[in-house]
Amino acid sequence: MNNFDYCSPTRIIFGKDEQKKVGEYVKQYSSNILLHYGGGSIKKSGLYDEVVESLKKAGVKYTELGGVQPNPKLSLAREGIKLVKEKGIDFVLAVGGGSVIDSSKAIAAGAKYSGDVWDFYLGKAKVQEALPVATILTIPAAGSESSPNSVLTDEETVMKIGINFPALRAKFSILNPEFCFSLPPEQRANGICDMMAHIFERYFTNTPDSQVADKLCEGVLKAIINNAHKVFENPKNYDAWANIMWAGTLAHNGLLGMSRQEDWGSHKTEHSLSAVYGIAHGAGLAIIFPAWMRYVYKTNIGMFVQFAVEVWGIDYPLRDQEAVALKAIDKTEAFFKSLGLPTSLKEINAKESDFEMMAEKATAFGDIGAFKKLAKKDIIEIFKLAYK
Amino acid sequence: MNNFDYCSPTRIIFGKDEQKKVGEYVKQYSSNILLHYGGGSIKKSGLYDEVVESLKKAGVKYTELGGVQPNPKLSLAREGIKLVKEKGIDFVLAVGGGSVIDSSKAIAAGAKYSGDVWDFYLGKAKVQEALPVATILTIPAAGSESSPNSVLTDEETVMKIGINFPALRAKFSILNPEFCFSLPPEQRANGICDMMAHIFERYFTNTPDSQVADKLCEGVLKAIINNAHKVFENPKNYDAWANIMWAGTLAHNGLLGMSRQEDWGSHKTEHSLSAVYGIAHGAGLAIIFPAWMRYVYKTNIGMFVQFAVEVWGIDYPLRDQEAVALKAIDKTEAFFKSLGLPTSLKEINAKESDFEMMAEKATAFGDIGAFKKLAKKDIIEIFKLAYK
Repeated sequence: MNNFDYCSPTRIIFGKDEQKKVGEYVKQYSSNILLHYGGGSIKKSGLYDEVVESLKKAGVKYTELGGVQPNPKLSLAREGIKLVKEKGIDFVLAVGGGSVIDSSKAIAAGAKYSGDVWDFYLGKAKVQEALPVATILTIPAAGSESSPNSVLTDEETVMKIGINFPALRAKFSILNPEFCFSLPPEQRANGICDMMAHIFERYFTNTPDSQVADKLCEGVLKAIINNAHKVFENPKNYDAWANIMWAGTLAHNGLLGMSRQEDWGSHKTEHSLSAVYGIAHGAGLAIIFPAWMRYVYKTNIGMFVQFAVEVWGIDYPLRDQEAVALKAIDKTEAFFKSLGLPTSLKEINAKESDFEMMAEKATAFGDIGAFKKLAKKDIIEIFKLAYK
Repeated sequence: MNNFDYCSPTRIIFGKDEQKKVGEYVKQYSSNILLHYGGGSIKKSGLYDEVVESLKKAGVKYTELGGVQPNPKLSLAREGIKLVKEKGIDFVLAVGGGSVIDSSKAIAAGAKYSGDVWDFYLGKAKVQEALPVATILTIPAAGSESSPNSVLTDEETVMKIGINFPALRAKFSILNPEFCFSLPPEQRANGICDMMAHIFERYFTNTPDSQVADKLCEGVLKAIINNAHKVFENPKNYDAWANIMWAGTLAHNGLLGMSRQEDWGSHKTEHSLSAVYGIAHGAGLAIIFPAWMRYVYKTNIGMFVQFAVEVWGIDYPLRDQEAVALKAIDKTEAFFKSLGLPTSLKEINAKESDFEMMAEKATAFGDIGAFKKLAKKDIIEIFKLAYK
C-alpha cells in the first residue's frame, strides 16, 4: 500500500429542495457573487428562478455569466475573470454540470492570479489560492462538484487540458437527484460512462495490496451498473438517480484512489478526441476505454480477472485467465453500447489520418498512464483498436 | 434514499515516517499546544521522542498531559481544560488511540466553554466551537481520528456517554501502520471489533434503497475480515495493518452511513457494560452485537440475508431466509471468537443482577436504536441472550 495524503473538505448537501436554501449557504461566505451557468436548461427547469429568489432573499448580490458550453472554453473563463476583477466579486456559484463547474474553477483561480489563467493548464504556474466556489449540480458525471480538478479547452490551439489543485475544491455542493429527471438520454449515458471511467482510472493499478480501495471501487461501480438501466426505463426514478448521483461524486472526490497508483492515460487520450471532434467526454471514454483495456490487459491480467469476477460477476473457468479478462472487457463495452453510447471511432466519423495528430496532443507533456506507460505510438495503437 | 449533509474535512496523512513531520503540520495552526497522551507505550516505542523532537524543531511550545486511560475519564479532561485555560494553549495534539483522542476533544471543547464540559455529554449544551485538534493515531479502532465523536466516562456516576459535533473533527490525523506492530493481541482484536461495529451500526437499516452505502459498508467489512487474521499470524504485516487502519478511519468518518437511517443501539448498550465492568469497548461489542442481531433480525430479515451473502459469502439455500440469517450471525460470533474476543457475558463475569441497572443506564435518555427501537426491557432481553 502506498503512502497518501487525503482531504476532501467539500460539504455535500444531498436531497430534495436544498437548492431553495442556496442563498443562506452562500451568505456564510459572500454577499457579492458570480452566478455562472450554461445554456437555457436551468431557466426552462425553473432552477434558475429558485436560485435567484433564494439569493435575493438572503441579500446576496449576483452578477450573471451564462453561456458555458460542453468542453468549456478558455475564452469564456477569461471573460469571467475580467468581470470578477472589475466588480470586486469574491465568490463563484456554479449552477450546472461539470463544464459549468470547471469553468467556475478557472474563473476562481484566475481571479487571484496576475497572469493568464491558461498558465495553470500549461503547467507554467500552480494554483495557490482561488475564490471560494460552490455548486448546484444538475448533471451527475464529471465529479467536479467535490474534486480538485478543472478541464478547459483552448479553442485556438484545440488543446483540452485538465488540472488538479486542492484550492479548486468547492466549499459546498448541492445535489438534488430530481434535477436529473429531465436529462436527455445521451447525457444520462455520458454521465454514467464518465463516472465509471473515473473509477477505472483508479481501479486498474499495479500497486500490490490496496484492498480497501479495491473494494470501494468495485462497490461503487456495481451500484452504478445496478442502477444505470433504471434511469432509462424510468427517468423519474428518484432512488436510482440518487444512487447514481452519489456514486458520481464518490467516483471523483479522490477517495477511491487513495493508497494506490492511479492511471489517467485513457482520460488524456480522450481529451484529444473530444477536443478535435467536439464529442461529449463520456462518449469519447466509451470508445477509448474498451480499446485501452484490450491494449493493456496483459500487463497485469490478475487485475482484469478480479475486475471480471468482482464487478461483472463473471462465472467462467478462472483457470483460463485470458478468456475471463477478455470477457470482462466485452461486458464493459456491451454495457456502454446498451446505454446508447458509441464504442467505435467510426461511429463518430473519426478519420484514421487524425490518429497521429491526436496521439501527439495526448502525449504533448510526455508519456501518459501508469498501469502501462503509453507513448505516442501506443496511443495510435489504441485508436486503431477503437476503429472497427 | 434519505437526504443527507456530509462533510469530513479531516486531512488524513497516511504512511511511513509521517510522524517525524508533525511539528511542521502543527505549526500551520499553533505554536503553543497541549500534548496529550496515555500511559507509557509511546515512550517505550520511541514515538514520544520523535514527536517532541519534531515539535522542538518547528519551534512549537508544548505542555504535556499524559495518563489517559481506556474509557477516558471526565476528571482528567477537566484537568486538561484547566491547564489549557491557564497557559493560553490554543491547540491539542493527541498521540494515542481513541481514548486519548476523545479526551483531547473534550479538552478542546471545554476550553472554549464557560460551563462544565460534562454539560455537552449530558445534552445540556452544544459544542459550537472547540480548539483545533490533531492526532497521531497508534491504535486503529475508535475512528475518532476523523469522526466528530467523543466518548467520556464520569467515574462518580459511572456514566459513559458519547457526543457528536462537527467542531470536534480533527484538523489532520497522521496514520502510520507501523505503530500497530507492537499492539498486544487483545488490542488488535478489540480494535477490529470496534471498527466492524461502527459499520454494523450504519449497515443494518430499514431505509429501502441506499445501495451505494450498502456497497461501501460491505466492501470495507470484507477488507477488514480478509486482513484480520493476518495481523495475528504476523503482527508486522504492513499491508494488512494498512488496510485495517484505513478501514478503521472510513468506518467512522460518517461516509458509510450517508443516505440511510443508522442504528447505534448496540453502542449505547455496550457503553453501559464497559462503564460498569471496565472492559474494553471492543470486547463489550463482541458480546453485545451477536446478541443484538439474534434479538432483531426478524425485523428485516432481508437485510440479514444480504449481510450473509455479501459480507460472509454464505452459500446456503436462500429460500430458507431464517437459516441464512442465523448462519450469518453465527459466523459473526465465530469470527469474534477466533480473534480471542469474549462473546458471552459470563466470560467477563457479568452478573444477572446487574442487567436491570445497566439497561436503565443504556436507556437513560430514552429508547435507543433504530433498526428496531429498544426500550429498557429489550436491552434486558439482549443481555439475557448474551448470558450463555
